Amino acid sequence: MVETVYDVVSVGNAIVDVLSKVGDAFLKERDLPKGMMTLVNAPEAGKIYADIIAEREVSGGSAANTVAGLASLGADCAFIGKVHDDELGQLFQRDIGAAGIDFFTPPLLAGEATGRSVVLVTPDAQRSMFTYLGAARRLSVEDIDEKIISEARITFIEGYLLDEENAHSAVLKACELAHKYGREVAFSVSAVSCIEKNRELMLDIIKNQVNILFANEAEIKALFDTDDFNKALDLIKPLVDIAAVTRDRHGSVIVHGREKIFVEAEQITDVVDSTGAGDLYASGFLYGLVTGRSLGTCALIGGITAAEIISHYGARPEVSLRGLVRKKLIEYGKRPSL
Amino acid sequence: MVETVYDVVSVGNAIVDVLSKVGDAFLKERDLPKGMMTLVNAPEAGKIYADIIAEREVSGGSAANTVAGLASLGADCAFIGKVHDDELGQLFQRDIGAAGIDFFTPPLLAGEATGRSVVLVTPDAQRSMFTYLGAARRLSVEDIDEKIISEARITFIEGYLLDEENAHSAVLKACELAHKYGREVAFSVSAVSCIEKNRELMLDIIKNQVNILFANEAEIKALFDTDDFNKALDLIKPLVDIAAVTRDRHGSVIVHGREKIFVEAEQITDVVDSTGAGDLYASGFLYGLVTGRSLGTCALIGGITAAEIISHYGARPEVSLRGLVRKKLIEYGKRPSL
Repeated sequence: MVETVYDVVSVGNAIVDVLSKVGDAFLKERDLPKGMMTLVNAPEAGKIYADIIAEREVSGGSAANTVAGLASLGADCAFIGKVHDDELGQLFQRDIGAAGIDFFTPPLLAGEATGRSVVLVTPDAQRSMFTYLGAARRLSVEDIDEKIISEARITFIEGYLLDEENAHSAVLKACELAHKYGREVAFSVSAVSCIEKNRELMLDIIKNQVNILFANEAEIKALFDTDDFNKALDLIKPLVDIAAVTRDRHGSVIVHGREKIFVEAEQITDVVDSTGAGDLYASGFLYGLVTGRSLGTCALIGGITAAEIISHYGARPEVSLRGLVRKKLIEYGKRPSL
Repeated sequence: MVETVYDVVSVGNAIVDVLSKVGDAFLKERDLPKGMMTLVNAPEAGKIYADIIAEREVSGGSAANTVAGLASLGADCAFIGKVHDDELGQLFQRDIGAAGIDFFTPPLLAGEATGRSVVLVTPDAQRSMFTYLGAARRLSVEDIDEKIISEARITFIEGYLLDEENAHSAVLKACELAHKYGREVAFSVSAVSCIEKNRELMLDIIKNQVNILFANEAEIKALFDTDDFNKALDLIKPLVDIAAVTRDRHGSVIVHGREKIFVEAEQITDVVDSTGAGDLYASGFLYGLVTGRSLGTCALIGGITAAEIISHYGARPEVSLRGLVRKKLIEYGKRPSL
């Protein structure tokens, strides 16, 4: 077996988040849906982008956020995703490089611009997101680097990729390569909208390819088209080795064979921006796994890293997660072996 | 710190179980309570003992059963408890020696006979137990061997000892010595009757001395005088590092800081004799702990060892638990680190 170089390689949409504060009138005048994520095409994106003052541009993308969190925890990571060699693409590359993450996917030199998510924050602190995938949707099987996948203990894939035909083939390629080298596949279902659009395909991949699944309560229910949370937990049990299901302030549940592990959430007083909570929970959980912690401790670490990300704007950590987690675990009196 | 020689030393009542089949009339004629454990004095015990045909005499005692299970799993164990140097006392010593357990407590050479529990099995398969503690109640602080406690990673104590003044002092001595050497104390609350008789004292010991607590659902509720199981779990949480609560066919729950781990029970078709289920659950759980498994796996192993013991008469294992557990864990596809 090949030595591992990476703890985790993630495959996902390379996206830059463009944050802007707007009034409610801005959304109403343009008939834009509020409080959710909407995929938009190039002209639509251009129109919104032209009208706003971009307050902050920060690298994002679900699977990219997860490896950024892992890198901040001290894990060795790589990212596979597609940008254009434009201004936002260079920003994305700079951020991911600064985080110490290997990112070798060749950028587009022509065609679609780098993917972006325009995040409009209204005075009521709600976030309405308009995502133009752009270059990200050009990710193809050729971009799935066999060497990197073979050298990573875990290949983490975001479900959003299933929305695109090209990227969908890339997902299957990544899964097959990971298993070819005896590695594990982790998968995030990403969003209820993504599940509803791709349920059969997603269930098929989960059942046949996925070892470690990430979802939240609404998503796991949507996956099995049920309102019964416990039923959904029982249905996911035989399909994967480990399912980590987040429940906001109720913490998370880990389903692993005959065990169900309920872990309390961190107590936080002020949620500033919940974007990235799921992505960073996955960072903490996977960090626990690759460092050989128990599943309960993995979930605890996921809770700590998720709590950090929602205490500020943006989905990339603003402190050293490694130090934060070490401090918190000592505070909780965790013995190293548990 | 002193090297450990033992994984677990247990301290408890040294008891021989005397099994006998009787008709319902036997109980009625003597006005004996059915289906529960009753403490009896020497004349009462003598009277019952004289009237029965002792079908089988097998070593028992809660904490002794637990180390017998641990030894069968491959752990290094010692036992501290008091027998008389009589026929039943020699049987007890022979059994515990054959199991490979160190047992150096000097036997009584005069006074009370070896403790025994006369187990009357009626045709409806119910068990009515009449326990004469005898020599067991003479366990004193002098019997708590500092060297053995200092060399054991975990000192396991049965709650039944709190029923006797002498033994109660011995319990405190064992706890203090364990902590003096940086070891851990595991404690079983033993029975609802034992809790009701000693609630304040027991809670005091649990809070100040115990790291790992064993109880079943009825017992943990009795401990906090509540009918609300979840409330009882929340109340035990701050008092100990780990609480392992068994729930018969519903498996067990482990409470550990912010984690609650629910583990399914083994599926068994035929429960022959439930005596020793709690004792052997503790064997499996502690074996998991001393071999560095996750708490979920500890509970799983506890379920496997408990299932073995209730599939036959008597509270000592009839197969190599080590082989059984290894086979079952492979069957469940457990990865060694989980």
